[in-house]
Amino acid sequence: MKIAVDAMGGDYAPTEVVKGVELARDAYPDLEFLLYGQAEKVTPLLTDTTRITVMPAPEVITMEDEPVRAIRRKKQSSIVLAATAVREGEADAFLSAGNSGAVLAAGLLIVGRIKGIDRPGLTTTLPVLQKPDQSSFVMLDVGANADTKPFNVVQYAVMGQYYAQSIMNVKNPRVGLLNNGTEADKGDQNHRAIHDALAGMDSINFVGNVESRDLLSGVADVVVTDGFTGNATLKAIEGTALSMLKLIKGEIMSGGLGGKLGAAMLKPVFKNVRSAMDYSQYGGAVLLGLKAPVVKTHGSSKAGTIKNTIAQIHELLETHSAEQLVSYFDQHTDEMAALKESLK
Amino acid sequence: MKIAVDAMGGDYAPTEVVKGVELARDAYPDLEFLLYGQAEKVTPLLTDTTRITVMPAPEVITMEDEPVRAIRRKKQSSIVLAATAVREGEADAFLSAGNSGAVLAAGLLIVGRIKGIDRPGLTTTLPVLQKPDQSSFVMLDVGANADTKPFNVVQYAVMGQYYAQSIMNVKNPRVGLLNNGTEADKGDQNHRAIHDALAGMDSINFVGNVESRDLLSGVADVVVTDGFTGNATLKAIEGTALSMLKLIKGEIMSGGLGGKLGAAMLKPVFKNVRSAMDYSQYGGAVLLGLKAPVVKTHGSSKAGTIKNTIAQIHELLETHSAEQLVSYFDQHTDEMAALKESLK
Repeated sequence: MKIAVDAMGGDYAPTEVVKGVELARDAYPDLEFLLYGQAEKVTPLLTDTTRITVMPAPEVITMEDEPVRAIRRKKQSSIVLAATAVREGEADAFLSAGNSGAVLAAGLLIVGRIKGIDRPGLTTTLPVLQKPDQSSFVMLDVGANADTKPFNVVQYAVMGQYYAQSIMNVKNPRVGLLNNGTEADKGDQNHRAIHDALAGMDSINFVGNVESRDLLSGVADVVVTDGFTGNATLKAIEGTALSMLKLIKGEIMSGGLGGKLGAAMLKPVFKNVRSAMDYSQYGGAVLLGLKAPVVKTHGSSKAGTIKNTIAQIHELLETHSAEQLVSYFDQHTDEMAALKESLK
Repeated sequence: MKIAVDAMGGDYAPTEVVKGVELARDAYPDLEFLLYGQAEKVTPLLTDTTRITVMPAPEVITMEDEPVRAIRRKKQSSIVLAATAVREGEADAFLSAGNSGAVLAAGLLIVGRIKGIDRPGLTTTLPVLQKPDQSSFVMLDVGANADTKPFNVVQYAVMGQYYAQSIMNVKNPRVGLLNNGTEADKGDQNHRAIHDALAGMDSINFVGNVESRDLLSGVADVVVTDGFTGNATLKAIEGTALSMLKLIKGEIMSGGLGGKLGAAMLKPVFKNVRSAMDYSQYGGAVLLGLKAPVVKTHGSSKAGTIKNTIAQIHELLETHSAEQLVSYFDQHTDEMAALKESLK
């Protein structure tokens, strides 16, 4: 299994990306890496070139570049060359911590969609708190598409189901539709139509509408939504968790000696809380629906997160998740065509 | 100033509602109350009838009732009679902790919209954490409409601005549009159109797009969004805050003696955190855009929250917030007509 890695993307690139790749290489003897970047910067960082090939990519797509234009113009960039390697079958997956829009555009325009899937969906894994038999759930789309049609969300359910099976090792994942209430008739006309379509699909273990209030309690294994709402929900969860940790820290700091002593004693507790909320432990966001795994990790990723993300890609490749999707949509062309027609 | 109160709505009605009304009556000598409910249940709970008149309402709209149908059929319910009193000018505002949909429907269908406002928006106040010069912000629509048009969101900005002036005592509130990125061109076509419309309005202090990640950090005083996204964002904030407090508590409980000692020392810290996150301190959700304040508090409201909500209504009445909106939309009919046309 070979992974094409963008060595130039992210706040700590290329140093931390290279470090992360080396950690993953040491952990997974069955992985090889194509490391795309400016060779004069990347090569000196490598301590050991076993199963790592530096692939020269003189151009760099920056965070300021307009994604689609950058993909079209910077043909010699690490993102374009790495994605092209996947399309050409020279690599099995693509990983980047760089410009999100450019990574998504490269996935869509270069790697390409699975036949039968209208829109790929950006998928993230989030923690479930205080539930003994469930530690995480996946949500999509969290922002690949700002303009989503009901049929796209129905396809996300299938994609999310296979993903949860691969990554979370859940046999029959519970799929929920994010809505403004749990009753079947909640939401606008589109959401009622999506609800009814999902309820009618034999291949989906649909548990009905779910509310964003209950996500971290583990109300579903897979949560599907349009890219706009998913993005707002994901960022609200992130922002609230961070703000609360800051608030608690601030309150302790201004709380006098008792508070500081208490804080010292609670150090392990806060460490656990921070680690429970740290969803970089689950790797990056996966653009599902493409012919091969395309994974975007946080721009602030350090070596540990890069390594976790490669572990996630390893899992996706080992379970043949993309091939499973291909075969599902191949076998369900009639059902999909009928659903698309009915959701128009 | 006279407030019509639904004594029968909420998990702890009528006991806690009556208690809350009495607390508010004692705190605000300029307030009078019309207390709608089943007289045989409500009257015995009153310890002192000064400035409180029990208004018999034999029917009760339950949480299970379908809102619009209930409003039409249960003409003798506390919700219908209280809203009717406001329409008839017998009361200046309406408060309920009951069936949200029914309260919204009663506001819209009985109290009625301000001329020139297409859709009312449900408005909630949320805390800002760790910012010395800002303790809260308001967000609308958080769920009155599942099907929102761009023009509605533009009107929410005006409504939110007046509300923030009344309630938060901010002279020139910063208005932000919830979007999937901060740049001006983010979001779908609708969001770009809303952004440009708001940027072109002289009467709005528009600060551009904001992300849900930054809301609790105080990125704006007023955040406008469609009712579906607003609902998902509000519930994600609520759910994450609650889950984190539970997680921390769980970690402490399983943390051995050191953890428990630390927890004891940190008690005041957690009290402050809980109180900072408790947005019932700001009262209820206000359905803005109606001829008079219609306010819905949490179903789980106890006397203290009922009292806080009455304090909020007192503020709205004292600052003539509804009259200010009436006069704004009266003076801006041409601008509104042009905006509505351009946003079609």
